[in-house]
Amino acid sequence: MSKLTDLPKRILIGRALHSNKLGETLLPKRVALPVFASDPLSSVAYAPGEVLLVLSVAGVSAYHFSPWIAVAVVVLMFTVVASYRQNVHAYPSGGGDYEVANTNLGPKAGLTVASALLVDYVLTVAVSISSGIENLGSAVPFVVEHKTACAVGVIVLLTLMNLRGVKESGKLFAIPTYIFVGGVFIMIAWGAVRGLIMGETMKAPTADYTIHAEHQGLAGFALVFLLLRAFSSGCAALTGVEAISNGVPAFRKPKSKNAATTLALMGGLAVTMFCGIIALAMVTKVRMAEHPATDLLKDGQPVGSDYTQNPVISQVAEAVFGNGSFLFIVLAAATALVLFLAANTAYNGFPLLGSILAQDRYLPRQLHTRGDRLAFSNGIVLLAGAAAILVVIYGADSTRLIQLYIVGVFVSFTLSQIGMVRHWNRHLATETDPAERRRMIRSRAINTFGAFFTGLVLVVVLLTKFTHGAWVALLGMVIFYATMTAIRKHYDRVAEEIAAEDEPGDETVRPSRVHSIVLVSKVHKPTLRALAYAKLMRSDTLEALSISVDPAETKALRDEWHRRGVDVPLKILDSPYREITRPIIDYVKSLRKESPRDVVSVYIPEYVVGHWYEHLLHNQSALRLKGRLLFTPGVMVTSVPWQLDSSEAAKRRARKRAEWNAPGSVRRGPVGEPKREKAATKK
Amino acid sequence: MSKLTDLPKRILIGRALHSNKLGETLLPKRVALPVFASDPLSSVAYAPGEVLLVLSVAGVSAYHFSPWIAVAVVVLMFTVVASYRQNVHAYPSGGGDYEVANTNLGPKAGLTVASALLVDYVLTVAVSISSGIENLGSAVPFVVEHKTACAVGVIVLLTLMNLRGVKESGKLFAIPTYIFVGGVFIMIAWGAVRGLIMGETMKAPTADYTIHAEHQGLAGFALVFLLLRAFSSGCAALTGVEAISNGVPAFRKPKSKNAATTLALMGGLAVTMFCGIIALAMVTKVRMAEHPATDLLKDGQPVGSDYTQNPVISQVAEAVFGNGSFLFIVLAAATALVLFLAANTAYNGFPLLGSILAQDRYLPRQLHTRGDRLAFSNGIVLLAGAAAILVVIYGADSTRLIQLYIVGVFVSFTLSQIGMVRHWNRHLATETDPAERRRMIRSRAINTFGAFFTGLVLVVVLLTKFTHGAWVALLGMVIFYATMTAIRKHYDRVAEEIAAEDEPGDETVRPSRVHSIVLVSKVHKPTLRALAYAKLMRSDTLEALSISVDPAETKALRDEWHRRGVDVPLKILDSPYREITRPIIDYVKSLRKESPRDVVSVYIPEYVVGHWYEHLLHNQSALRLKGRLLFTPGVMVTSVPWQLDSSEAAKRRARKRAEWNAPGSVRRGPVGEPKREKAATKK
Repeated sequence: MSKLTDLPKRILIGRALHSNKLGETLLPKRVALPVFASDPLSSVAYAPGEVLLVLSVAGVSAYHFSPWIAVAVVVLMFTVVASYRQNVHAYPSGGGDYEVANTNLGPKAGLTVASALLVDYVLTVAVSISSGIENLGSAVPFVVEHKTACAVGVIVLLTLMNLRGVKESGKLFAIPTYIFVGGVFIMIAWGAVRGLIMGETMKAPTADYTIHAEHQGLAGFALVFLLLRAFSSGCAALTGVEAISNGVPAFRKPKSKNAATTLALMGGLAVTMFCGIIALAMVTKVRMAEHPATDLLKDGQPVGSDYTQNPVISQVAEAVFGNGSFLFIVLAAATALVLFLAANTAYNGFPLLGSILAQDRYLPRQLHTRGDRLAFSNGIVLLAGAAAILVVIYGADSTRLIQLYIVGVFVSFTLSQIGMVRHWNRHLATETDPAERRRMIRSRAINTFGAFFTGLVLVVVLLTKFTHGAWVALLGMVIFYATMTAIRKHYDRVAEEIAAEDEPGDETVRPSRVHSIVLVSKVHKPTLRALAYAKLMRSDTLEALSISVDPAETKALRDEWHRRGVDVPLKILDSPYREITRPIIDYVKSLRKESPRDVVSVYIPEYVVGHWYEHLLHNQSALRLKGRLLFTPGVMVTSVPWQLDSSEAAKRRARKRAEWNAPGSVRRGPVGEPKREKAATKK
Repeated sequence: MSKLTDLPKRILIGRALHSNKLGETLLPKRVALPVFASDPLSSVAYAPGEVLLVLSVAGVSAYHFSPWIAVAVVVLMFTVVASYRQNVHAYPSGGGDYEVANTNLGPKAGLTVASALLVDYVLTVAVSISSGIENLGSAVPFVVEHKTACAVGVIVLLTLMNLRGVKESGKLFAIPTYIFVGGVFIMIAWGAVRGLIMGETMKAPTADYTIHAEHQGLAGFALVFLLLRAFSSGCAALTGVEAISNGVPAFRKPKSKNAATTLALMGGLAVTMFCGIIALAMVTKVRMAEHPATDLLKDGQPVGSDYTQNPVISQVAEAVFGNGSFLFIVLAAATALVLFLAANTAYNGFPLLGSILAQDRYLPRQLHTRGDRLAFSNGIVLLAGAAAILVVIYGADSTRLIQLYIVGVFVSFTLSQIGMVRHWNRHLATETDPAERRRMIRSRAINTFGAFFTGLVLVVVLLTKFTHGAWVALLGMVIFYATMTAIRKHYDRVAEEIAAEDEPGDETVRPSRVHSIVLVSKVHKPTLRALAYAKLMRSDTLEALSISVDPAETKALRDEWHRRGVDVPLKILDSPYREITRPIIDYVKSLRKESPRDVVSVYIPEYVVGHWYEHLLHNQSALRLKGRLLFTPGVMVTSVPWQLDSSEAAKRRARKRAEWNAPGSVRRGPVGEPKREKAATKK
């Protein structure tokens, strides 16, 4: 090839060589943690606040329940982490909840999990970005004043980044995540030092506010219901925990063990941060209300709708570090960044899940192609569009969006854990080694408890959140489920229709002869090439066909034909209405009628152009004609391309596209990486 | 063919037989008049008002200039009608202004006229519909209260009607036009009877209002300028006069003579109505102001922005017939209807002109195909979109839109008349018959005067209207002109690039061998058909090619291949990244590299589906692959279709589309009509 292609090639090979050092592309635990945990860790930025918000309905006095709710969340977190450690060992392929449910509970359960996950990805983007904007807004008021616009702006930005194809690196995740985790731990430690050792009183900015309880002196069932609702909201801290179970192949060996350790580490960090923030919120007397405009009182007066309720984490940081202090700003920025990273993980997960679903024919087959930019783009645009719609509808209010969030998470938790129980049952039926059996029985016990507990939470979430917005998430799941079922049905029907019979049927009866037709409008290079190629094919008969729409042009064509002595007979069809398609279709049909066992082969000279607008100027009739011809049985249509000079531009673009690499590759691990290296050097 | 197709065929033949009686489809003068004159006649609904509006700037006293302005408009109308009578005789083919300017003044003048006409069509829609809404609003206040929405609604309605393809009939035009003309004449006559014979005093609803003159006591140059502006506005009455010159072929024989007579009749009717309405407006003391909210005073107070200024014609009708009377309502409805019909003529003219421009390669070639629904639709949507934008921007205010309108009309008038002068000069150079020469010299004198007068008006219009909005129309013309020039340049460049050399060049060197590849993913009917067809083509080598994206699937394919004993070698390429396109492209390129003189023929089994959404589920990889393959020289790509059951639905739709007939056929005349009859019976 030409010299022009050397540079891209070298870049390709360079990249491939680098990734050859396989060990480097596999993630050590210290990098895997931030890569997979930005989603679950970032949720401590909003989960504690949600607990306080719900409790505030019964007045500030209800805040003293919050440690108990934190305990419940911690227990749940340990349960889920313990359960998923079993998944990681049992499915080191990184199959995730969809695979577990599909394999063990059947396709309907699998599809339910898939629907829940797809809805979840949309909500991860919407919630994380909204919460990120709120956290950024505690340092930069402008942002929170134009909340929806900023949130949509971040969605657009992430979308463009992912469409362009950012090359991910562990560092990108590691730095903000560790700053965030470090910042929160410093805050907790410094708060403890100031409060316990130095005996200082730290006051959150809302410490002097009072809350107007919507339901004063709640008791009995109503109180229990409120506590359950608060617990459901706290469960937001668990979103994203399952991510590691999808990413086992990306870990260094021993993969499963390392993944399990990272999972435990992540769980430990998350609960510590969650509890620390709740504790600090209690100490610094953070006051949050579900409807701050009316229920949050300053000097006995409602604060009004102009008031912006800052997230718990930023109120606590303000109390501990001081408003506007360096550490306060750094923590706010890191929190926002980690939340945006969490949103970004959905941009990787959504198309990846789409590709797995496409493999099972629940989504259009082309999504299956891994690293296919077009398929990837469609997924990203769908995800971003849905998230943006939610953000706009809910005014980028993370509290309202979280009501939708947790349903999907617990649907997949529960089904996945039930699936794991089945998995162990199946294996126990055949396993004979006592040590192995003991291990399996222990795992089954953990998963059974996990299934029971997450199922219980799911029921609680459904009961307490349904009218608050969970129905929207359920509706989304139903829509995904129905669409995917319909697509699968369609593919199944087509597969049945086109299945080859064992007895040779009609379609395998070899047709007897081929009648070839070359479409001609003028004698120019593309036509001559098409004629040359058609002659090469040695069909039984060959003729050139032209449609006369203008007598003068037709005469010119006929003269030129004879002048050049083209040795193919030229047939001219009249078309008084200047139609192109119909006369050709009619002619082809008449040929087929005369000899039904013959095949008609139509050669169409086509221009290959370089810019989209040139498509409008060329080939329109050819394309339409082709579309119509294909409906006629016994016809095949051959495009003979003529590359216009401008097509070089498109070629260059295509080459550039080929160098694009899909985001999310760090998380997926290096499947096939060494093979690509080979292909690149061979090329 | 099957019985299913009988009905459409019978409908086709039935229609064709009917149109066989050629005389019936040709228009007698009494039908031709309303068909072609709805546009120019309808303009008397707004032109008189525009004159009064402009004069009002100098106060009510300036109204006494209006008869003089009417006289100037009448003289101009007679000049233009006399000039176009020459066009009709010289160009009986119905070429219109574009052809006249193109033939006689060269392509640049032709393109200028074409740009002006395209802009004019857009403005015809915008102005006519806005004015129609205003007239309807004088009887139905709701309509004028939601002016913009109603105007856009009418545009949408006309667009849908034209997209669906209404079968036009002379009656459709004749009835409202004659009611409108009759109504106006009755109004003028009854007004004359009441005023002159019965001596009654008729008062327009605004008769008691006074006008606050923006410029009191205007004199000298300023007054002349104002009068010229008023005259320019009055020229709106001339819009659409040229329509008959495009429609000569639709007339009965002697075509040119009948067309010329109709033209004269139309001019006579238009000026009588125009003058009658102006006279009645003077008698009934209609008061109109350019800015009624501030300058129109009732009892000395401005009427305010709530006031709706009704069109002159409806104010006069109210004075003569009485408000809410039967004749008042009928006239208002007929006026609105005729204006909507006038807008509809643009829906026919725009695609027709587009088709002529496409023939000259100024617009995408596919627009050339007459009666092609898709091409037609694009033109209609473009026209409707542009008109709707103007209507929204200008708030459906006919007065403001008219400022844009008249420039284009007079650009084409002037250039067409100059072209006619050249035409006669050319013919006089060779003509020797003295009688014929005298006739030509007389025609040339008329066209010369026409060119001079319309050119003068163009200058006046440009001077008086430029800042009032004419610049928008000029900008539109420049955009059309530039776009069409660029398209033509592109086509010329491509034509040069692909021109066949007289010496056999590279592309005519016959390639030596064909290497055929059938793409295979599974063994099913479409694959078997593609293999059967490919075998039939007797190429030099033939192999089946499959891309391995899933080892299990690949193994299944290989097993099935051997089990069935398919006698074509199966080659399998690895694709670790589950890509389809790249491995195939690379393989084809390697084949080409090995033997550059060979041609590679790629067979792709394609599914033919019936619904748009099925396209999303099938063929995506095939299409993309095809797009990429065509960029590689020495490759031809053959689609072997497999018609899925659902494709029947698309076939039915296509058949339905084939029965569609383009609107505007009445105006174009029956070119090729008998031939279609033949084709239909043959079929």
